[in-house]
Parts: sequence; C-alpha cells; structure tokens
Amino acid sequence: MVLDSIKKPNDIKDIPPSQYDELAREIREFLINKISVTGGHLGSNLGAVELTMALHLVADLPDDKIIWDVGHQSYTHKLLTGRQAGFENLRKYGGMSGFPKRKESLCDSFDTGHSSTSVSAGLGLVKARDLKGEDHAVFAVIGDGALTGGMAYEALNNAARLDTNYVIVLNDNNMSIAENVGGMSKYLRKIRTAEAYKDFKIVLENKLNKFPNGPQLVDTLKRYKSGVKQLVVPGMFFEDMGITYLGPVDGHDVGAVVRMLKEARKLPKCVLVHVITKKGKGYMPAERHPARFHGAEPFDIQTGLPLKRGRKANYTDIFSTVMTKLGARNENVVAITAAMPDGTGLKRFANMYPDRFFDVGIAEEHAVTFAAGLAAGGLKPIVAVYSSFLQRAYDQILHDVCIQNLPVVFAIDRAGLVGADGETHQGIFDISYMSSIPNMTIMAPKNKWELSDMMKFAVGFSSPIAIRYPRGEAYDGLEEFRAPVVYGKCEVLYEENDIALFALGSMVKTAEEVRRELKEMGYPCSLVNARFAKPVDTDAIDMICMGHSLIVTLEENVLSGGYGEKVRDYVFDNKLECDVLTIALPDDYVEHGNVDILKKEVGIDNETVINRIVTQYISWGNKHRKDT
Amino acid sequence: MVLDSIKKPNDIKDIPPSQYDELAREIREFLINKISVTGGHLGSNLGAVELTMALHLVADLPDDKIIWDVGHQSYTHKLLTGRQAGFENLRKYGGMSGFPKRKESLCDSFDTGHSSTSVSAGLGLVKARDLKGEDHAVFAVIGDGALTGGMAYEALNNAARLDTNYVIVLNDNNMSIAENVGGMSKYLRKIRTAEAYKDFKIVLENKLNKFPNGPQLVDTLKRYKSGVKQLVVPGMFFEDMGITYLGPVDGHDVGAVVRMLKEARKLPKCVLVHVITKKGKGYMPAERHPARFHGAEPFDIQTGLPLKRGRKANYTDIFSTVMTKLGARNENVVAITAAMPDGTGLKRFANMYPDRFFDVGIAEEHAVTFAAGLAAGGLKPIVAVYSSFLQRAYDQILHDVCIQNLPVVFAIDRAGLVGADGETHQGIFDISYMSSIPNMTIMAPKNKWELSDMMKFAVGFSSPIAIRYPRGEAYDGLEEFRAPVVYGKCEVLYEENDIALFALGSMVKTAEEVRRELKEMGYPCSLVNARFAKPVDTDAIDMICMGHSLIVTLEENVLSGGYGEKVRDYVFDNKLECDVLTIALPDDYVEHGNVDILKKEVGIDNETVINRIVTQYISWGNKHRKDT
Repeated sequence: MVLDSIKKPNDIKDIPPSQYDELAREIREFLINKISVTGGHLGSNLGAVELTMALHLVADLPDDKIIWDVGHQSYTHKLLTGRQAGFENLRKYGGMSGFPKRKESLCDSFDTGHSSTSVSAGLGLVKARDLKGEDHAVFAVIGDGALTGGMAYEALNNAARLDTNYVIVLNDNNMSIAENVGGMSKYLRKIRTAEAYKDFKIVLENKLNKFPNGPQLVDTLKRYKSGVKQLVVPGMFFEDMGITYLGPVDGHDVGAVVRMLKEARKLPKCVLVHVITKKGKGYMPAERHPARFHGAEPFDIQTGLPLKRGRKANYTDIFSTVMTKLGARNENVVAITAAMPDGTGLKRFANMYPDRFFDVGIAEEHAVTFAAGLAAGGLKPIVAVYSSFLQRAYDQILHDVCIQNLPVVFAIDRAGLVGADGETHQGIFDISYMSSIPNMTIMAPKNKWELSDMMKFAVGFSSPIAIRYPRGEAYDGLEEFRAPVVYGKCEVLYEENDIALFALGSMVKTAEEVRRELKEMGYPCSLVNARFAKPVDTDAIDMICMGHSLIVTLEENVLSGGYGEKVRDYVFDNKLECDVLTIALPDDYVEHGNVDILKKEVGIDNETVINRIVTQYISWGNKHRKDT
Repeated sequence: MVLDSIKKPNDIKDIPPSQYDELAREIREFLINKISVTGGHLGSNLGAVELTMALHLVADLPDDKIIWDVGHQSYTHKLLTGRQAGFENLRKYGGMSGFPKRKESLCDSFDTGHSSTSVSAGLGLVKARDLKGEDHAVFAVIGDGALTGGMAYEALNNAARLDTNYVIVLNDNNMSIAENVGGMSKYLRKIRTAEAYKDFKIVLENKLNKFPNGPQLVDTLKRYKSGVKQLVVPGMFFEDMGITYLGPVDGHDVGAVVRMLKEARKLPKCVLVHVITKKGKGYMPAERHPARFHGAEPFDIQTGLPLKRGRKANYTDIFSTVMTKLGARNENVVAITAAMPDGTGLKRFANMYPDRFFDVGIAEEHAVTFAAGLAAGGLKPIVAVYSSFLQRAYDQILHDVCIQNLPVVFAIDRAGLVGADGETHQGIFDISYMSSIPNMTIMAPKNKWELSDMMKFAVGFSSPIAIRYPRGEAYDGLEEFRAPVVYGKCEVLYEENDIALFALGSMVKTAEEVRRELKEMGYPCSLVNARFAKPVDTDAIDMICMGHSLIVTLEENVLSGGYGEKVRDYVFDNKLECDVLTIALPDDYVEHGNVDILKKEVGIDNETVINRIVTQYISWGNKHRKDT
C-alpha cells in the first residue's frame, strides 16, 4: 500500500509521481471503507482527493497554511497528515472530528464548519504573516457552493487589494449539497463548458492572427485597457475585482494542479485557481446521488444503500409532508431554503410547487431578508433552515423581519444536539438569540402531530414566528394529547402534586419517561408541554405554583437566555412560592459524538435529570410541600 | 417655488421638464436649510436629488415599489411624496423618521437602516408580484458602498436568474461613508473613468470596422460565445452573473436617468442601471467633506461648520486616543473597521499605522472572521464597530472567534440608545446576543478613564472580549475611582446600607446621580460599578446580599438576556435573601428621538429610576431590612 508509507505531514513528497494514481485510488478505497462503517461526508472528500494531494505536494506543512472552507472535505488532508488511525473513531465521541480542528493538528490552521469563511480567515493569516515578516504560503480552499455565501464575496473584495501572495483554490464541482444555484454558478458553468477554454487564450490569438492585420488589431484592442483582457481571459469576473485568475484545471490530474498551484504561489497578489472536480469521484453511487452521499449514514459499499432501512419518520419528514399540504391549501405559502432542499425536507414541496419554492444558495442572510420582502408583498414565506445556520441571519431576523413585524415563519430544523458534526452544527443557541428579539414568537413541538399543528398555526399567524425541532426520529408518543395550539399557551398533560415538569419540544419525551420513573420512585409529577419558549405562559406558571413546590424546566438549548431562565425569572420576580430547577445545556460548546452520549455528557439524559430533580426536591422542595 | 406645487405622490409628473433644474435646486436648498437646523444625513441626499426625481417620474406610486438601501438617502423621496412638513421635526421624537418607514407612507415599501438589504427585499417583492399576477415595477436603489456587503451579492446572485423585470439602481458615488474600498470599488471606478465609456460600444465597433474584414471578425468573435460581449460591455461583471447592465449614466441629468430607467423597465429580467452621482452635490462644504456631512449635526450654512463647538470628548474620541497609544506600545495590535474609519475613531490609528489598519468596507461578517484569522496568525485584532451593526456578525463571533477562543477585542461603540437614527440603529441588544455565546467576556466602562483601562486590559486578555460604550459625551465624573480592572470583578464605589445599585457602563453616571438624590431622600444606597456584564461577579453579589435587602441593576440594554436578568437569576437561584429590581430597557424596539426623551420613555431616566427604587423598597425591601 502506498498509503501506508504516509505517517506524517509531507511524507507524500517522498512518493514518486508514478504512484500518484495508485495513492489516489487507495485513499478513495480507504475513505469508502471507513465511511461506509462510521458514516460521514463522502462525496466532497472523494472529489477532493487529487486536489488535496496536490496541495500537500506544494505546501510545506505546518508552516504553510491550508484553510478548508466548511471543512467536511478535509478527510484526505487528515490522512496525509498522519491521522489514518483517527478514522476508526471518526465523528465519534472523543474520536477524530469530521472537520479541521486546531487542537487536533498543527496542520489544521483554522477551524471551520459553516460555509464561506475560509477566504476571510485566510486573508487574516496572510496579513499576520506579512506584518510578522514571515513568508509561508496561505491556501484557502473554497467550493463553488460556498461562493454563493456573501461573506466569501466580502473577502474576495478585500483580497483583491493584496500586493502579496494569497492563493484561493476554487474547488468547483457545480454543487453545494444539492445542485448549485445563481448567477455565479451559471458563470462558472459557462467557463467550464466553453469550447477549448483550456487553451482559450492561445486559440483565440491564433484565430486573430489569421486575419490580415490581426496582430495590429490586438494592439489596438489593448489600448482599450480592459478590452483585450476581457477577450482572452475566461475568469474576467475575478480579474475585474483585481484577483488574478488561473484555470480552469482538471482537479483530478495531480500534476496539472501542482503546476498551477506553483505558478499561483509565485505571484505577488491574490490568485484564484479554478479547479474542476467531480463530487463523489470514483464511487459510482456517490457520483450518481451526490445529495445522499454528502453526509452519509453507514452504507453497503456494493449497493450504496444505507445499512439501516425502514427507519421511523423524522421531524424533517413530517415537515416535508405538512408543507405539501399547506402548499395545496394556501397558494400564498412559499418556501425558502439556503442550499438544502433535501436536508430541510422541502424537495417534495419544490417538486409540487416549483414556482413557490426558492433555493437561494448558501445565503442565509439573503434568504431571510428575501422572505421579509415576500411577506411585505403579501405572501406567507416559510424559511426552512438548520438552527446553527440561522445564526448567520441574526440581524436579518431582527432588522428586516421583526422591526416591521412581518409574518415570516422560521422552520428551524436540527434545533438541539445534532451529534456527529459537532460544535459548529449543534443547534443549541436559537432560543437564546431569538428570544430577546422583539416581536418574535418561538414554539417547539412535543411530537410529530404537534409539529403539524404548529405549522398550521404559524401559517395563520400574523407576526414573525419560529418552530424549532430536533434532528432525528420524530417522537410518536403522547398521541392522545392534541389540544389546539393557542398563542402563548402551554398544554397540561398530567396533573399530579408538588413537582411540575415544564418541558419544551424534544424534552417532552424525556420528561414523560422521567415522569414515569419518578412516579414509581414515589415522586408523582405534573407534566406540562411548554409549547411556547416565547412568550412564556405566565398564567400556567401562576396556576402551577399554587399547587406545587418545585417547577422543573427542561429544554435542549443552553441555559443562558433559554426557556428555563425566563420561567425562573418570572417565578422569582413575582415572588411565587415555588422553587425552580432549570435543566438545560451548560453554557458551552458541545463536541461531536453520538447524541445519547452527548445528552449524558451535558446532563439532559433521563438518569441525570431524575437525580437532579430528586436531589433538588429533597433539599428544598420537600420542606415546602404544598400537597400535604 | 416649483417645490410647493408638490403636495402628494406623482405630483412631480405635472411639472414641465424645463423646470427640473429649478426643482432640483429648490430641493437642495430646502434640504440644506432644514438639515442645517435639525441635523441629519445631508451628503447622500444631495447626491440623490435628480436620481430620486427620475425614479418618481418613471414610477407610479404607491403601486410601484422603491426600496432605498440603508434609507438615509430617502429625503427627496419623502419630499416628493408630500412629506414636506415632516422636515420640521425630522428625526425628532414623535416626528418624521430619517429612514423609510412603511407606517409613515404607503410609498415607503420596505423599512431599511442597515446596509445591503434592498436587493434581497426587492427580489421578495418581485416574486410576490409575479405570483400574485401583478405587474408593478420594483426598483431597488443601492449605493456602491452597500455593494461591499455580502448579502447584496447573495441577492444579485439570485436576481440574476429572474425572467421578469426587476430594476436595480446602482447609485455610485465612489463612497460609503468614507471612501469606498475593495476590488468591486476599483472595478466601478474603472468603468466610470474609462475613455469614452459612454459610447464604448459604438466607438469600438467603429474601430473594428476600419479593419479589413472587421465585420467578419466580429462574427468570428461572436462564435466564441462570451467573447464579443465581453469586448463591448463595460459592466461585464454583472453580465457575467446574468444581470443586464445599463450605463453608466450621469445621475445629475434627470432626462438621461429617466430614459435609462424606462429602458430598464422594459426588459423581462434583472437590470442593473449604473448611475454616477456626487455625494454632497451642490453644497460645496458637503462635496469637500463627505464624511463630516454624512450624518451632520446642525451647522452654519455659510461656513459649513457645526453650530455647537468645543464639545466635550465623547467615548469615540477616548477610544481613538487609546488606540494610538496601544498601537505604539504593541506592534501586534491591529485595527479593523467596516467602512467607518471616522465614526469609530480609528482614523488617527490609520494615519499612524497604515499597515496595521484595515477598512474592509461595509462587511461586518468578513471583518470579524478576518479578525479571527489575524488572531490565529498571532496578532491582536481590535474590531471597532457600532453595536447594531455587529448584529450582522453574530455567527462569525460565535462560530469563528469563540469556538476557537481567539483573542479578538470588540470595541462596541453606540451601545445603548443612539437617538435620532431610531429603531435600526439603537445598540440595545448586544449584551443579550453576546452573553449566551460561550467564551465571550463583556465589559462596559463607567467613565472615560475606565474605557482606557479596559482597552488595555482587553489587549492583554487571551480570549474573546467586548467593551461596549455609548454614543455621545464621555462621562468624566467619578475620577477618584480607578481600581485596576480585574477579570470578572466589579468595583464598589460607595458602601451604604440595605439598598445596593449595580450599574453597568453608561448607567453608572445615572446611578451616581440617583444615589445622591436617594440619599437626600433618606435612602442611602451602596453603589457598585458592575464593569463586567459577563461573567457576573457572583462574589460581590454574595457579599452585598449579606448587608442589603434590595439589589437594583441598571443597564442600557433590553431586559431579556441582559445583565440584570443574570444578577436576578443568580440571587434567586442561590436563595440569597435579597430582592432584585432590574432596571433595563423594555423588550421592544425604540424609535428615533432625543436620547434624553427616549430615556424617559423607556424608563431609565433619573426620575423613573428613583421612583421605581423607592416603590420597590417600600413594598418589599423595607420589610426585610438588614440595616436595622
């Protein structure tokens, strides 16, 4: 195995070029074998094998810096920096991260996870290098999908002014997770597919020279400053900004990429190297189903099919179904996604109502203000988005939606712990950052039917409203409780004495299990489905406080700024005679790992919850019993 | 007066073209006269007079929609829609807003305030129009400065796909507030200054035709798809994305702009009309000093000088001075602004250390991640930014700075009520949105010396840290208190009995005045300068709770997620025997107006604070006295 000879950074340089193809093949085989077992990002990694090899052949690590935009395509980078063993526990709790991590390797120069940050971070590293009088290389590797994100453009706009070297590698596979969208994507496609573009310049000059006075014509055109340059350079978009464009180059030809990177490294300015790759390259199922193999569950290598079949519906599935119904019922309903038609479950809506579906690219800021415009125009926009990505649009929610009190619905998927993707993807801040925004309402459903009910409620609501729901299997318990959704009102599920659980969204399931166990232990608890994280149902709290001595809040969000703090604040500020125990995530980032392990780690698993409740009740509540 | 004949929307259409120049002159005179008295945005409005006239001549209001990016250039729009009288109380409490407001006029189709939102909002209105089968026009007017903001690009990337009409008017004056920066700006400058660009196409075709086989050459080039188009169109950057480019056109020639807008309106796609204007046009002091006349205080029309002279130093001045000292002392200190070198006070640092100063354009997202890159590269970046604009970079703070725990300093100016700019500019959410972000520390200085001390502390700190300080005069009282800044520790200023005021930042001044009055009234209060909004100094609270029965927190931030909630939460959660009164802004947006009036309105003026403290103390605290 050629791959086995790579033990540490730069070892690839000892491999003869004649073995590059074999190495690439082995890396692909390794990745497919490992990811088919652990799950992980496959397509983007298969597409970046040769590109990563080329970068490692050109770069001197860890002195030179490579920044991987989003970062899920960094598996080959991890392999080539000696982290082969880490793949055994890839994305597992305590194991290797699926993203670059500075604490994992000196060769990981900047942590990533969200899209479109690499050019900014890289520019910072370039300026730091220059001010410190160092001369190492900085490579930012960004996909064409990430290029739909505005901050990448903000960064390009600044990088264009550089008079020292900075290499931006555009890894262009014509995809974000789904097919890439927008004007820029169309433009890149145009460059990629133009006849003979590879030798565009030469061919065109030859053509011109066939004309009488051809050379003289070129001279004349040159006098028109930008004229002739526009004529012969395919990457004029970037050149117009002041960035030198090189390419396009076949991203699966190691030698060609190496040559171009070396050329790029020589120029005393910002250079964009346009590399054409194929997502899923070398594994047919991934080439054919790029969305499915973007972030793959464990799968059968032969068939490409997931190992776990017949899974129960998750919240995304429920959302997907409800959306098609809402779309049929109300023609003002429109749906927006930022490059995740599959991930958010909007694909079916998109197929049924293509005119009312908008995939705006990886552009959460635009997505939200665009939705505000749609609402101002009289429509009922539903923005389907993952919790951690909506962080990108905080100001747009506050400034464009909520000041004008526009009826935009936010369907926030992946709210809570998401597991294997780790810190950057946990959806554990949305209640905190949204609940201090005026005019915003926040709901969370207890089970799959309630998500449906809440969606219907939200579409009929006349102000900004968010529904947060977690990743994974939709809870199908508590079917018997389906009281109509009423603004700002919770739903009392079980009435007992002295201890009352106020559980929000995903934590209702936990609370229900905890309630059963506590009852067996001799601590019968009332159970309230909070439904609204904002506004807090103060009437219900008033009422509960009369017959209970301890309120326990449960939520899958950080404590600070969350639901529990609001409840506790209300109880204490109004001097209600009741203790409040807030069970929430600690105010910290949560690493990658299995969600059940993480829940234990952060203290929202059944056992910890039960222990905390009993301890609190014995230490305080018991002395203030109201049920006696 | 021609202007007097305009009483309502569309009245301008009855004015003969021969009087356009006179009308423009009168509008300028009107604006200069009014703004010299009330203050307000002058330069941008003087630059947009003819452009606005042209839009109103072409548009049918309120059916057609005009969206003003940022919105401070909408004064002529307000005049032409019959709001002449409103200028008497422009930006005053209860008076007309300095920005477009849907509740103010049907002709204001979308509220703006922050930059770069118009293209997104307009695209929403376009899609709503199309889906509803309407056919009105939508015009988004965006400056070249706003075009440095990434979300404008996200929107252009999507607008490029339109197959119905959408007119984007690029109001290009080569400025944001200060001179515009970056590759795009350079590109626009190139278009504007190219020889004969106005007739570029014609001239070039003529040239080509002089060659033997010229026409044949053009044919050949055309076969190279994008080739010939690139040759003859100056706005290729936009054309490359799929947006039709028209222009440039002289933005002070009403007829020319009208013709181009009409042409643009006819095309079934997204059209960008490039209009060249001059900021401050027609008023020499504003032409010469665009930054000073961007948002002007009342001024003398003859000289252009502000009426109020010899003002006391404000916090921005203090920050400015400290930065130059820090820059001298530590060569790793670098400073970043998003298009506000003057507003943030970084101009002096920029002049002294040009290599260590970065104006990134209106691009807060990039600014923060760029700073993260600088910090990862070993430098000590200070991001100077207004509180409300930092909202744009929430995810970059959380995801790029704080996960990696990078030592970026955020110098947050305009934190608290800002006054005349109103809802979109009040800096009243920063504690809320930052305090739930792990690894973040938040400080606020009591007076001008403390800002300096905190800056020095922050530069020596090894994690992300923010210092928030308000607009306006720096407090120079309490000079005698200057205990060293210690992480997480507050500063006890006065020790009395039973009532303790915990005041944060700007509210220390208020608290000090309140303390004096309360003492005279027979309620001596301890006074604690909180210093850290996060982490809360729990030791100090423990100690204070022993000798006091009432803690009063004071902050210039909304209640939800603010400092007071954290203090109250700690006291109650730990069952300390003390009541807590949280004085903060209500959880709502705050309109424009004089800051003193606004403070009364939101209940943080001395009188309201005193009343609330006394009421609370009598109703509860008094019964639980600890000083007896």
